[in-house]
Amino acid sequence: MSEQKKTNIILFSGDYDRAMAAYIIANGAAAYDHKVTIFHTFWGLNALRKDEKLRPSKTFMEKMFGKMMPKGAENLPLSKMQYAGMGPKMIKNVMKKHNAMPLDDLISMAQEQEITLLACTMTMDLLGLKEEELLDDIEYGGVAAYIAEGEDGAINLFI
Amino acid sequence: MSEQKKTNIILFSGDYDRAMAAYIIANGAAAYDHKVTIFHTFWGLNALRKDEKLRPSKTFMEKMFGKMMPKGAENLPLSKMQYAGMGPKMIKNVMKKHNAMPLDDLISMAQEQEITLLACTMTMDLLGLKEEELLDDIEYGGVAAYIAEGEDGAINLFI
Amino acid sequence: MSEQKKTNIILFSGDYDRAMAAYIIANGAAAYDHKVTIFHTFWGLNALRKDEKLRPSKTFMEKMFGKMMPKGAENLPLSKMQYAGMGPKMIKNVMKKHNAMPLDDLISMAQEQEITLLACTMTMDLLGLKEEELLDDIEYGGVAAYIAEGEDGAINLFI
Repeated sequence: MSEQKKTNIILFSGDYDRAMAAYIIANGAAAYDHKVTIFHTFWGLNALRKDEKLRPSKTFMEKMFGKMMPKGAENLPLSKMQYAGMGPKMIKNVMKKHNAMPLDDLISMAQEQEITLLACTMTMDLLGLKEEELLDDIEYGGVAAYIAEGEDGAINLFI
Repeated sequence: MSEQKKTNIILFSGDYDRAMAAYIIANGAAAYDHKVTIFHTFWGLNALRKDEKLRPSKTFMEKMFGKMMPKGAENLPLSKMQYAGMGPKMIKNVMKKHNAMPLDDLISMAQEQEITLLACTMTMDLLGLKEEELLDDIEYGGVAAYIAEGEDGAINLFI
Repeated sequence: MSEQKKTNIILFSGDYDRAMAAYIIANGAAAYDHKVTIFHTFWGLNALRKDEKLRPSKTFMEKMFGKMMPKGAENLPLSKMQYAGMGPKMIKNVMKKHNAMPLDDLISMAQEQEITLLACTMTMDLLGLKEEELLDDIEYGGVAAYIAEGEDGAINLFI
């Protein structure tokens, strides 16, 4: 059906709270029957990293990036570190008390709702991230893939 | 009239300069006769806090959040603290010299222009913010309210 | 032709990586024959500054801003300084190895593709930036210019 509305989110940020916002909106749009795609680029790729030790063959620089960047959804930092002491741990405690879904559950829900999770190949190349380090069942593409979806989007956001 | 264009802004950020940008665009769109809604979520809720001492009944955690987060538009921090010494005070001095509107005036203007200011109930719950702590005459809703407006938006932005 | 699709990007951020993302999307959209405009506002104006010594007549405050803010695309900071040691230099080294375009080349390409680069006059006034300090062949406007383009945009982003 060509009438299905589209929501396209570029997730550029690697912050826990911004990634949460992206996935809450995405899951909401999917519940309203939108065709939803999240384009993970730059630091947003970190949300897709597996929380495992892997040893893909990498250059020295790629290894450095790999170590410096957080591994997977539940290890992302908060966007506002200046609120002294309010780290991701505190937010997660509060979320648990309110039965709010943590980010990794929001990502699983997105996959169950058939939201397309796309990893930007250009940034993967730059940061030295390999496909085996990212979640299974995601797609890969560049800016062309984004424009093709975005130009028909009812809702387009950059987060 | 069903032909009225819509502008929908998600204000996620609690930075003074980003909130200013959101309200300047919103007021501009309203002047061009758009139906405008600003969805305040996460730190963006701080722009809606009253600058008063209130004592709603709160849990320990909620009290802590309440103390750590800035209270109201004119107390928000700048997004770029690294520009040494260029705090909100400096920006506000410059703004006054140029007769630019401070954020609280931009918010009043938005209310006069009948822009809908909406507070995200899910984040209010997480951060322990109560309705009595937020400005009067605002609306409340969740992600469903956003999708309903956003899917018809001529301009949709995440700030 | 009235059928040409429009992509409108508000570049608010003065971060090197966010500006790169903005220009990569803009150049991609132009390659797909969109009419593209980038509205540079607040810190995003720094991407348009000439990397030259100029001595326009300024007030004391304007001089201070002028000194504190980075001069031109290649002097912008990264958005994530907390990744210890991963400054713009490191990113640029990696980019060079992968034959990725640095920001100043992305801006030149944008101008060759006839993307409209627009500087927000309200923020120029606030920050004391003069036309002679910004790149040649750009346009000037305010929020009205943005709404006029944005309300017909296929893709509207705030970066």
